[in-house]
Amino acid sequence: MKMDKEHTVIKVGEGTEKGREKVWSKELGCHTAIQFQMKTFPDVRVNVVYTMVVAIGLFLIAAQLLPLSSFDAKLLGCATEMAAKQDTLQPLLSQALLHEKINATSIDVRHGEVRVFKPHGLATHLYIEMSAYRGGPRAFSIVGLTSKPVETHHRPPYACEWVSRSTGQVIKGRPHKVLPDWDYGKLYTVVVITCNFVEDVGVDGDGGELILYASYGDHYRQPERIVALTESKGEYNASIFDPQNFPYDYVYCGSSVYGDISPQRMREWMAYHAKFLGDRSHFFLHDAGGFHEDVRKVLEPWIQQGRVTLQNIRQQEIYDGYYHNQFLIVNDCLFRSRFMANWTFFFDIDEYMYVEPTTTLAEVLNENPNITQITIEQVPMAKDMCVADNSTQGEHQSRWGFEKLVYRKVLKRGIRYDRKYVVQARHAEAAGIHMSMNMRKGQNLYPKGDRIRYYHYHGTINKRDEVCNIFVDSGNKTAVQRHEKHYHRLEETMAKLGKEVKLFELNTVGPQPVIV
Amino acid sequence: MKMDKEHTVIKVGEGTEKGREKVWSKELGCHTAIQFQMKTFPDVRVNVVYTMVVAIGLFLIAAQLLPLSSFDAKLLGCATEMAAKQDTLQPLLSQALLHEKINATSIDVRHGEVRVFKPHGLATHLYIEMSAYRGGPRAFSIVGLTSKPVETHHRPPYACEWVSRSTGQVIKGRPHKVLPDWDYGKLYTVVVITCNFVEDVGVDGDGGELILYASYGDHYRQPERIVALTESKGEYNASIFDPQNFPYDYVYCGSSVYGDISPQRMREWMAYHAKFLGDRSHFFLHDAGGFHEDVRKVLEPWIQQGRVTLQNIRQQEIYDGYYHNQFLIVNDCLFRSRFMANWTFFFDIDEYMYVEPTTTLAEVLNENPNITQITIEQVPMAKDMCVADNSTQGEHQSRWGFEKLVYRKVLKRGIRYDRKYVVQARHAEAAGIHMSMNMRKGQNLYPKGDRIRYYHYHGTINKRDEVCNIFVDSGNKTAVQRHEKHYHRLEETMAKLGKEVKLFELNTVGPQPVIV
Repeated sequence: MKMDKEHTVIKVGEGTEKGREKVWSKELGCHTAIQFQMKTFPDVRVNVVYTMVVAIGLFLIAAQLLPLSSFDAKLLGCATEMAAKQDTLQPLLSQALLHEKINATSIDVRHGEVRVFKPHGLATHLYIEMSAYRGGPRAFSIVGLTSKPVETHHRPPYACEWVSRSTGQVIKGRPHKVLPDWDYGKLYTVVVITCNFVEDVGVDGDGGELILYASYGDHYRQPERIVALTESKGEYNASIFDPQNFPYDYVYCGSSVYGDISPQRMREWMAYHAKFLGDRSHFFLHDAGGFHEDVRKVLEPWIQQGRVTLQNIRQQEIYDGYYHNQFLIVNDCLFRSRFMANWTFFFDIDEYMYVEPTTTLAEVLNENPNITQITIEQVPMAKDMCVADNSTQGEHQSRWGFEKLVYRKVLKRGIRYDRKYVVQARHAEAAGIHMSMNMRKGQNLYPKGDRIRYYHYHGTINKRDEVCNIFVDSGNKTAVQRHEKHYHRLEETMAKLGKEVKLFELNTVGPQPVIV
Repeated sequence: MKMDKEHTVIKVGEGTEKGREKVWSKELGCHTAIQFQMKTFPDVRVNVVYTMVVAIGLFLIAAQLLPLSSFDAKLLGCATEMAAKQDTLQPLLSQALLHEKINATSIDVRHGEVRVFKPHGLATHLYIEMSAYRGGPRAFSIVGLTSKPVETHHRPPYACEWVSRSTGQVIKGRPHKVLPDWDYGKLYTVVVITCNFVEDVGVDGDGGELILYASYGDHYRQPERIVALTESKGEYNASIFDPQNFPYDYVYCGSSVYGDISPQRMREWMAYHAKFLGDRSHFFLHDAGGFHEDVRKVLEPWIQQGRVTLQNIRQQEIYDGYYHNQFLIVNDCLFRSRFMANWTFFFDIDEYMYVEPTTTLAEVLNENPNITQITIEQVPMAKDMCVADNSTQGEHQSRWGFEKLVYRKVLKRGIRYDRKYVVQARHAEAAGIHMSMNMRKGQNLYPKGDRIRYYHYHGTINKRDEVCNIFVDSGNKTAVQRHEKHYHRLEETMAKLGKEVKLFELNTVGPQPVIV
């Protein structure tokens, strides 16, 4: 048989044919063709020479392995023993498998011309750990990213356990998986594991570890053991789970914020919602690159007062999921807020929550004790339509965005307008962007906008200049306005709140500069 | 601000606020909250204590790094210098990035509460190297798998170059990417890179290396440098590219063979096609787990005669692509066969090629010199319909599968029946299963089955018992038969060839045992 090329081919003799043997190593640049024509000494050929060939092959492999700093020598195992046995070439595979803990014993490479597949680089990790939270004496939630193709094609099982710090006792948990952003991920997709135990764990206060096992869903790889949460001695405190002890009424969980955010818009949003949610509220904001220095200046007084926590999540950008991993971030915040407040809000920083002055936010949310989640209708606002008012040119400059943007879009039939939501976080198993699809307790309420709604100023937050672009004649301002294929109606509800929000800001954090 | 949990949170002070500092490490199990109330010594606080806090943080990080055998210490870089600078916490990221060569300098973690995302395990490599082949004095083809989500979402660029062995001169090539199994892959997808040079490379015979750069398509990771092919001194031989020097007329490239294959069916296929393709042909068979010991026994005489090369590709199973990576395998074989024969066949071992006896295979293929690819129609055969013939009970046992399976399925309207193909491999840039979509030269021919066709005995190869299950009464055998929602007609073309194929086998490899 004649062949012009035999790249990456290592032919393995079977001891019976009159063929020839080739040992080929690209890395060493040598093309060693060893012809066996020792027909007169079949025993020598089989016992000595074949062993030598295998030994030479092993030496070449070992030489290749030296530069691999991360190679696990245990995988190579009993290399000399292998050479003696000559009937298996597992080390060939070990060579190819680099630092992975691959169990390739099921792969029979004793026969035929063995082709080697050599891996390079690391495209995706199996699991990216973000956080884990206790949900009670016998439940935990673990938030992370997992490799999307592994999740899609292998549906790998998860496992979890509690290891007591004092006794070392291991208690198996029952894992429940939720993929809140299913089919939105890219290289990674979000996975939330709820780990339930049939008994209380760690309630003795001795401390312990919650272990997550993330697996690959194939025959070759063992699960990764991940210490998801560590409780130190005395850390466990049962009283925090009692709603009576929650430090806040409301927590706001912001999504990943990215781009060149307008500091002035951020300031306006912050002042409005600090007033709207009241003193017993806390804001978690997530900086995925959008909270540049000027935005941080605007937030600084609120951070100083303990009203705002600014989380730097920029590292997540390395792990390419859906839209700056926003599903990951809101899930982390969901569990973080569980025992901080009765209600957790999920909406964006171009959205303004509102309830009619005839009622209060508390009344709306707590009307029915069985309701654990409420989705909220939006009022889409025009991003650049204002009223021309020549007499107040100076005042125009100092007016806030929601004072000037006074046109709502007339809703179109057949279009589904996104909702946002507020949830009793302790009853949710995962968070979404528009609602939680994984409530464990209670009912969902989908009220009309006359109870609670939000004004959505889409397209206003990512530009750092004047919002007004279209000016409606003031004498005509109540008429329906057509602009960019939309009809618009005057909507001054938010505008009328400008003065009192500004006063609230002044009284709370003092005079603030305008940073466009 | 009160919070119940701060998992994986490291708060970074900005040196100006009256806040507090928390350094938190799960691995060491210590929750160190350091309160700064040194209001009377602001300089001490800023200059000394903050530096200490950062230094302690770095120490904890370093302690965590010790167990990571594969960690690249260069990434951590100037740890002590960092501590002195205190305005950057890149090491935090380095900790999280394990053995990857991530450039995270663009990620600003100086502000806010830094959340760390910690990776675990290796789900997919970037690139799995199978082979590379020279296509001429200035062209190469490189065959491998790449991470499917990286390819899908990042469309990463490739690069290639030739490095002369004697002078070290580097010549850049122009890479052209083909994804022959696009959208069929799972964790991995097949990628074929053609590397073209504007000048001849390595034709001096001094040897050299073809380098492939596979990249991640993101901002954080540098391309992997892969030595795709090594030519040793004197290896280059221009004469092999001349079709006059091709050793064969035809090469057969088999797909990945998996499952419990019937040795007797394999024997029949082998004898038939060894005769059909003639002495100047060679068969590449690919064992993805299907060529068990009994099948190898059947192939052994043909291997001995140099007619067959059996490739062990079982390792590919670790890398989860489409159907045992069959697109990878056929592409490797395409390039391997380029200068071995004028025509390369791609079809399966349950398919039997046929041309009418009024012509020859050579006549059909070489009729028009502009045709470089010919697709071939199939005749789908019933997998279990035979004719009942009581008088020949003993002979029935010894008859071969294609002698007994004598009913073809009547084609249905609106159903597209797959074709297989034969191609002048040197003019193809990639191979598919049903045809090459990437011909560089010449025309495709899609002839009707009266020129050339193949009989497809689907469902007969993966069972190791008698094929006949439905027996048609011999008196009624020419009538249309309805079975399993299909109409069938008698088709004895192949059956009539049984005797001469058996005789050919006997004359070529001697008496062979029946292994069911």
